[in-house]
Amino acid sequence: MADLRIALAQIDTCVGAIDQNTAAILEWTRRAAGEGADVVAFPEMTLTGYPIEDLALRASFRRAAWDAAADVAAQLEREGLGHVTVVLGTVGTSETALPRGAGAAEREASGSPTDLPTNRAVAIQHGKVVASYDKHHLPNYGVFDEFRIFAPGTEPLVLEIAGRSVGIVICEDIWQDGGPVATLGALDEAGHGIDLLLVLNGSPYEEGKGHVRTDLAARRAREVDAPVAYVNMVGGQDDLVFDGGSFVVGPDGALLTSAPQFVEDLLVWDLPERTSSAGDAAAITYPTGRVAAPLPPDEEVYRACVTGLAGYVRKNGFRSIVLGLSGGIDSALSATIAADAIGGQNVVGVSMPSTYSSEHSKDDAADLAKRLGADYRVQPIAPMVDAFQGQLALEGVAEENLQARVRGVVLMAISNREGHLVIAPGNKSELAVGYATIYDAGSIGGYAPLKDVDKSRVWALARWRNNAALEAGEIPPIPESSITKPPSAELRPGQTDQDSLPPYDLLDEVLDAYIEHAEGRAELLARGFDPEVVDKVVTLVDRAEWKRRQYPLGPKVTSLAFGRDRRLPVTSRWREPVE
Amino acid sequence: MADLRIALAQIDTCVGAIDQNTAAILEWTRRAAGEGADVVAFPEMTLTGYPIEDLALRASFRRAAWDAAADVAAQLEREGLGHVTVVLGTVGTSETALPRGAGAAEREASGSPTDLPTNRAVAIQHGKVVASYDKHHLPNYGVFDEFRIFAPGTEPLVLEIAGRSVGIVICEDIWQDGGPVATLGALDEAGHGIDLLLVLNGSPYEEGKGHVRTDLAARRAREVDAPVAYVNMVGGQDDLVFDGGSFVVGPDGALLTSAPQFVEDLLVWDLPERTSSAGDAAAITYPTGRVAAPLPPDEEVYRACVTGLAGYVRKNGFRSIVLGLSGGIDSALSATIAADAIGGQNVVGVSMPSTYSSEHSKDDAADLAKRLGADYRVQPIAPMVDAFQGQLALEGVAEENLQARVRGVVLMAISNREGHLVIAPGNKSELAVGYATIYDAGSIGGYAPLKDVDKSRVWALARWRNNAALEAGEIPPIPESSITKPPSAELRPGQTDQDSLPPYDLLDEVLDAYIEHAEGRAELLARGFDPEVVDKVVTLVDRAEWKRRQYPLGPKVTSLAFGRDRRLPVTSRWREPVE
Repeated sequence: MADLRIALAQIDTCVGAIDQNTAAILEWTRRAAGEGADVVAFPEMTLTGYPIEDLALRASFRRAAWDAAADVAAQLEREGLGHVTVVLGTVGTSETALPRGAGAAEREASGSPTDLPTNRAVAIQHGKVVASYDKHHLPNYGVFDEFRIFAPGTEPLVLEIAGRSVGIVICEDIWQDGGPVATLGALDEAGHGIDLLLVLNGSPYEEGKGHVRTDLAARRAREVDAPVAYVNMVGGQDDLVFDGGSFVVGPDGALLTSAPQFVEDLLVWDLPERTSSAGDAAAITYPTGRVAAPLPPDEEVYRACVTGLAGYVRKNGFRSIVLGLSGGIDSALSATIAADAIGGQNVVGVSMPSTYSSEHSKDDAADLAKRLGADYRVQPIAPMVDAFQGQLALEGVAEENLQARVRGVVLMAISNREGHLVIAPGNKSELAVGYATIYDAGSIGGYAPLKDVDKSRVWALARWRNNAALEAGEIPPIPESSITKPPSAELRPGQTDQDSLPPYDLLDEVLDAYIEHAEGRAELLARGFDPEVVDKVVTLVDRAEWKRRQYPLGPKVTSLAFGRDRRLPVTSRWREPVE
Repeated sequence: MADLRIALAQIDTCVGAIDQNTAAILEWTRRAAGEGADVVAFPEMTLTGYPIEDLALRASFRRAAWDAAADVAAQLEREGLGHVTVVLGTVGTSETALPRGAGAAEREASGSPTDLPTNRAVAIQHGKVVASYDKHHLPNYGVFDEFRIFAPGTEPLVLEIAGRSVGIVICEDIWQDGGPVATLGALDEAGHGIDLLLVLNGSPYEEGKGHVRTDLAARRAREVDAPVAYVNMVGGQDDLVFDGGSFVVGPDGALLTSAPQFVEDLLVWDLPERTSSAGDAAAITYPTGRVAAPLPPDEEVYRACVTGLAGYVRKNGFRSIVLGLSGGIDSALSATIAADAIGGQNVVGVSMPSTYSSEHSKDDAADLAKRLGADYRVQPIAPMVDAFQGQLALEGVAEENLQARVRGVVLMAISNREGHLVIAPGNKSELAVGYATIYDAGSIGGYAPLKDVDKSRVWALARWRNNAALEAGEIPPIPESSITKPPSAELRPGQTDQDSLPPYDLLDEVLDAYIEHAEGRAELLARGFDPEVVDKVVTLVDRAEWKRRQYPLGPKVTSLAFGRDRRLPVTSRWREPVE
């Protein structure tokens, strides 16, 4: 019995783009076959893209996905690649009958389907779908909604490939104790366990999650006494980023090989032949392969931002981006991320000075655009603001908001005329405390690359990016003065952010505890934060939440991690009690 | 043993407003006690409001809700009302341990809580919380997200009140076969069943749902061989409308008494004494009470719209509404709904004519405002549009969109200056086919009263409202010409909706099948629709979805029923195949 060559195809799929995903599966299978692979494994829901949300409930979509799996099988057979075992993810339909009886009519009447889709892995060999597995554990917390959409599977799957027993599970199945992995850990009547556990994943990026994944896989490897091969998808999908980082660990938990993050990759690894009929894993020497070096934290976050934006632009059919350039750090970093995502020549930066804009702001904006090779335009807003003011005579905050919204209209008009995606440069700290205008140039648009990046991190990423350029012998993209000057919205004379907000490093610490960890005032004080600062921040956040919820048709800016918004009621009157 | 007087308190709560909800519970309990009630039952999650979504995961919120239940108990005892049994809904914490083991750390690391809240009913007697029940069936389809948030209960509850056995369940528990109702249907060792099944509900309004609820309750009543008392909440909450319509059915399923829809109400009904020790329900004569007449369909939908908007305004802390008045039917009906919700004197209608606006449009807008007693203003947009055009020289659709967005900025400016809620008059048909501009006066705002009402229904509701006024001897609010003239966006000369769209009655039929019933092209053709119309509508809807998804930070307008948006991926490339 020879080694079994496994290829993990870490690819970037697109939700709903079944034809395009099918073509990618064929292409990467050819490539894997070219490298002599016996098995090629793709990420979770490869054919359909992930996450497909309620699209799974549309019957014509499910039919198209089933047809596509059959097409993949037939096409590979036609090309003489039928001997390669392909394991891919798609949408299935539950074979376990749903509670029919009396409840079914009401479920249907209230818009709930009576047959439920599943999150399925299928194996293809010799022109046919030969086996399928439905994910057991359906995560329904944080960014996940799977229990809402899918019926859980109940059976494990062990696929026999060239005399090896390969257990197949999907993503969350290894995050929960018990379940299919525990079943696969049991030995059969002849005393054999599985030879490999293959895990198909759509695991979204979170900072530092790489270690959590490998530690978890190591534990499961020891549990099944076999190597674990973990293939993850890569790329930006909607408001999620998938970072790839596929890997194999041995039965002792040691990392044997790994793919880099944030790029498509084919990770090839050989499962050695069994040395004894009892399949004692300890007696086998497992080969090691290339191992991707972990990225430094700032680089990892920066590349997540670039990956997210690049995917959003491409998958939405855009080729270019427009944004306002104020000369400040948020728009400078956003423009730099945009240039790294799609090329500086595809970025349009618009300076929209008002009577309150400083000269250095305009200079910094022009300097940035030049460094990025971006299209730079100046569009003074005074004539439009004056026209509104001639009619409306606004004062105070209403006047500040008017300037901000006129800028939004200018960007949307340029987008309409020329087809660019408008992006919103607002950062997470200012969005959290409501230091932004609804429908302004900082919050309108299709994508907000910094919405999950707090202000302290904005500066850190800017410095990291400039240093990376220096190390590569390139011109740093971000003008130094955009990084060093005090942040200001420049909506009235002499305004700076710290007129209204605590210093950003302190603000960001309190925001992290209050928002990310859902701590209350009591817990914040117990951490040693100054009561005055806590009450100020809690009040600002609650008021900002309140205002955003008053306008839910407006910008959705409450997302607080790389991922979708927490779901909060719109008109909630709940406020953290303050003194 | 005397009759047991049951009061169903059909009240309007607010999510997160624990203090306000507590005050309402006390006030309605006093009122029920004044009518001699032994038991007063409140809707699902009375103390917290419903649905509380991820707010349930904030520990300080849960602590506040627990404290409030104890406060209600203590306060009633102080007032000498401790003898009244109060059954209300709140948030609990699961007493069943979650899977801790190895998975807990990862769940926590990925933002998932390690202790889960429950959807709880508590019973209060003599100053104490004496019993509690956690909802078993947690709906997670359509507008519901409960399985995401709550841990399911596992135990039934039978409360002994003055010698009667009262089973208590919550909403979805009666929509599913088996579960707690089946348990409650079993007889005890002495051959006794329960004497009453009390159901606490937060059942959102859907057209014609009333009959489904009473039919279902009738089946459960036969199952437990006892009357079913069904208390539902009322009022607008976020994007949901709750219609009340509480009722009691006998063990044979006959409707005994019912409360009206869309208003707070106290429905009082006497559970007679047992006539035999075996508690044979058939031998008991159950009293009947007042029965609310069902509303005609158009009136029911109209009142749902008014209830939704009124709740949104009040619960968000607004007192007044501003909207653009074009002279067309959508803004006329929206303004009329606004006037019925909060009074015409609290509505500001702004006519924002452009060079393409017809004279009759301006006349109709002024006439409408006069009939409603609304504040009416004229704000020509030419000066602002000219200022933008002087700088940007837009043409075609970009020019049309500019006019629409300038109107949006004017409304937001008036809102900022004067504090009114901006509402968006776009209807479901035009939103579905993308006959609207992102960030325009039809789609910006906090609430879109017609987003779940298709265009055919818009006309029907306008006619119904005018007729209702005539029957009441009042002036019909909507100018006849707004109802009869051909609809037009008036963004270019001579434009009408039917230049781009099929006739609305046909369009709305296809939309209903394609969107509400998720039918594919094959199913639409099988219904007999013309292939050309099907392909046109399918293409329009898919393109509109695509455009909306390009700008998810913009208006969220894909909601397709009274309720929250279906969850669809943002960048999906899936399109229903057309010829």
